[in-house]
Amino acid sequence: MQILNQIQQDFEAHLKDSLFENDPEELYAPINYILQIGGKRLRPAVLLLTCYLFKGKYKHALPAALAIEVFHNFTLVHDDIMDNAPLRRGMPTVHEKYDINTGILSGDVMMVHAFDLLLKLEDQKHFPTLLKIFTKLAVEVCEGQQMDMNFEKQQEVKIDEYLRMIELKTSVLVAGAMKMGALLGGADLEDAEAAYQFGRNLGISFQLQDDLLDTYGDPEKFGKKVGGDIVQNKKTFLYLKALELADQNQKSRLYELYQENQLNEKEKIEKVVQIFNQIGIKEETELIKEEYKNNAFSFLRKLNIEEDRRNLLEKFAYYLMKRDV
Amino acid sequence: MQILNQIQQDFEAHLKDSLFENDPEELYAPINYILQIGGKRLRPAVLLLTCYLFKGKYKHALPAALAIEVFHNFTLVHDDIMDNAPLRRGMPTVHEKYDINTGILSGDVMMVHAFDLLLKLEDQKHFPTLLKIFTKLAVEVCEGQQMDMNFEKQQEVKIDEYLRMIELKTSVLVAGAMKMGALLGGADLEDAEAAYQFGRNLGISFQLQDDLLDTYGDPEKFGKKVGGDIVQNKKTFLYLKALELADQNQKSRLYELYQENQLNEKEKIEKVVQIFNQIGIKEETELIKEEYKNNAFSFLRKLNIEEDRRNLLEKFAYYLMKRDV
Repeated sequence: MQILNQIQQDFEAHLKDSLFENDPEELYAPINYILQIGGKRLRPAVLLLTCYLFKGKYKHALPAALAIEVFHNFTLVHDDIMDNAPLRRGMPTVHEKYDINTGILSGDVMMVHAFDLLLKLEDQKHFPTLLKIFTKLAVEVCEGQQMDMNFEKQQEVKIDEYLRMIELKTSVLVAGAMKMGALLGGADLEDAEAAYQFGRNLGISFQLQDDLLDTYGDPEKFGKKVGGDIVQNKKTFLYLKALELADQNQKSRLYELYQENQLNEKEKIEKVVQIFNQIGIKEETELIKEEYKNNAFSFLRKLNIEEDRRNLLEKFAYYLMKRDV
Repeated sequence: MQILNQIQQDFEAHLKDSLFENDPEELYAPINYILQIGGKRLRPAVLLLTCYLFKGKYKHALPAALAIEVFHNFTLVHDDIMDNAPLRRGMPTVHEKYDINTGILSGDVMMVHAFDLLLKLEDQKHFPTLLKIFTKLAVEVCEGQQMDMNFEKQQEVKIDEYLRMIELKTSVLVAGAMKMGALLGGADLEDAEAAYQFGRNLGISFQLQDDLLDTYGDPEKFGKKVGGDIVQNKKTFLYLKALELADQNQKSRLYELYQENQLNEKEKIEKVVQIFNQIGIKEETELIKEEYKNNAFSFLRKLNIEEDRRNLLEKFAYYLMKRDV
C-alpha cells in the first residue's frame, strides 16, 4: 500500500498548505483547529485513491479531496453542537474550546469554502457534474443527521429506516468521494456510478461494523469505551434488530433496560448483551454486514480498471473493514 | 414601476412552487416556514430587475434569484440563533418555534440548497463565474457577521472597520445579486462589475440610512421602536462617528450612557440623542450616506443599458432609499 501512504502524505501536505489565513481570525482559527486535530482522512484518501485507480493524476484532485475533508469537518463541528459533545478525537470540540456561536458560524463558512475549493479544480470539464454530486451528498448528510435526531425521540424505528439513516449520514459521503475521484481520474459515468455504489455499500457495511465493535469490540484495541452505545440507550442496528427478533419477554426487558438510568453501567451492558446473545444478534448483524460488503465487491468487479489496481482498492476496503479489534 | 410589480409577482409564484416537499419533514418544515413569513424579497427582485435591464429574460434567472433568497434566509435563521432573537418579521424565529438544533441543521441544508438552485439555471455559459460570485459573497457575509459579533466585545471600533463590516454583512449580497443578474441578462464582465459596485455602494448607503432611521425615524412610519439601537448599546455608525467627533466631555458621557442599563429607556435615548445633536451626527451621517449614494449612481451611469431602463433602476434605488419615515 505504498501508494496509499504517498497519497496520505501528499494530502496532509496539501491541507497544511491550505490552512486559512483569512480575517477575522476569530472565524478562521477554529477551522484550522478542527482541521488539525487529526482524524484518519479516510474520505479524501478514498477520493484520491479512486482517481489514481483510473489512471488519473491524483494531485490534480487534491482540491476536491480537501473540499470533502472540509465539508466532513463542518458536519463534525455542527453535529458536536447538536449532540452537546465535549470531546472530539480526544480534544475539546470547537464549541467547547470557543463557544456555540463560533461553532455555528465557523461551520457555516467551512461549508462555503468546501464549494469554493471545488472551483479551484483545474479540470473544468466535469464541473457541473462534480458540483451536483457534491450538493446531493451534502443535502443527504443533513437529512441523515435529522433522521438520527428524530430516532432519539421515536419509540419505534424500523430497520429499513435505520439503514437509510446510516446510508445518508455516513456512506453517501464516501460514495460521493469515490464518484468524484473516479470522474477526476477519467472514468466514464457508468464506472463513476459503480464506484459510487461500491462506496455506498462499503460505507453501510463499515457503519454496521462500527455498531458491532461498540458492543463486541476488544476493549484493548477499541478506541472508545466498549458498550457506550448501550449506556447511552442508542438505537443501533443491534438494538433494533434485537427488538425485531426478540420474543415478548426479551422485548419488554430490552425496553426496560433502555429506559433504565439507575443501573450500574457494567451491569446494564451485561444484561443487554446477554439478551443480544440469546437472540444471536452478533451473527445477525455480521450477516447483513457481509451482504453489504459483498454488494460492494460486486460493484468493484464491474470497474474498468487494471487488475492490480482493483486489488489495491480491495485491499484498502479490507483494511478499512479489518478493524476487527 | 409596473415591471417591478411583475417581477415580484413572478418571484413569489416561483418561490411558492419551489417550497420543499422533501423528507424528513422536521428538517424542511422550518425552511418553508421562514421562507413564507414574508420579507420584502428585495435581493431576488434586484437580481431579476438587473437581468431585465440588460434585456435578459428574467424568468430564466428565477432559480438564481431563489438561491439568493434561500441563502439570505439561511443567514437570518443562523443569525437569529447567535443573537438570541425571539422574533423575526413579527413572528417567532425558527429556533424559537422549533429548537436550536433544528435552526442549525435546517439552516445548513438551506445553504446547500442555495448552491443546488444555481445548478438548475439553464444558462450554463456563466456557470463557474456565477458560482464564484456566489461563494465569494457567501464567505463575506459570514465574515461580516463575525466582525459584527467581535464589535460587541470591542471597546473601540474604527469607522473604517464599521463600514467594512456593513459592506460584508449587508451590501455584498445586494452587489452579488446585481452582478449575477447582469451576467444572466447578457452583460459583459465590465458591466457586471459596474452593477456590482452600484449595488455595493447602494447597500452601504442603505445600511447607513437604516442606522439613521433607528434613531431619527418617524415613530409612526418606522416599523421598529425608534431608539432601539441606543437602548441595546449598539455600536452603529452614529455612535462611532459621534465618538470620533466628540470632545472629551461628550465622549465620557457617551461611554457612560452606553454602559448604563439602569436608566429609563426614554431618558437614555433622549440623553444620547442630545449629544448626537450637539455634534451634528445626523448631518454627518447623511453626508457619508450621500457620498455612497452618489458613488452608486456614478456606477449606474457607466452601465451600457438603454436610458429608460437606467431610469428604472435609478427609480428603484430611490424607492429603496426613500424610506425616509
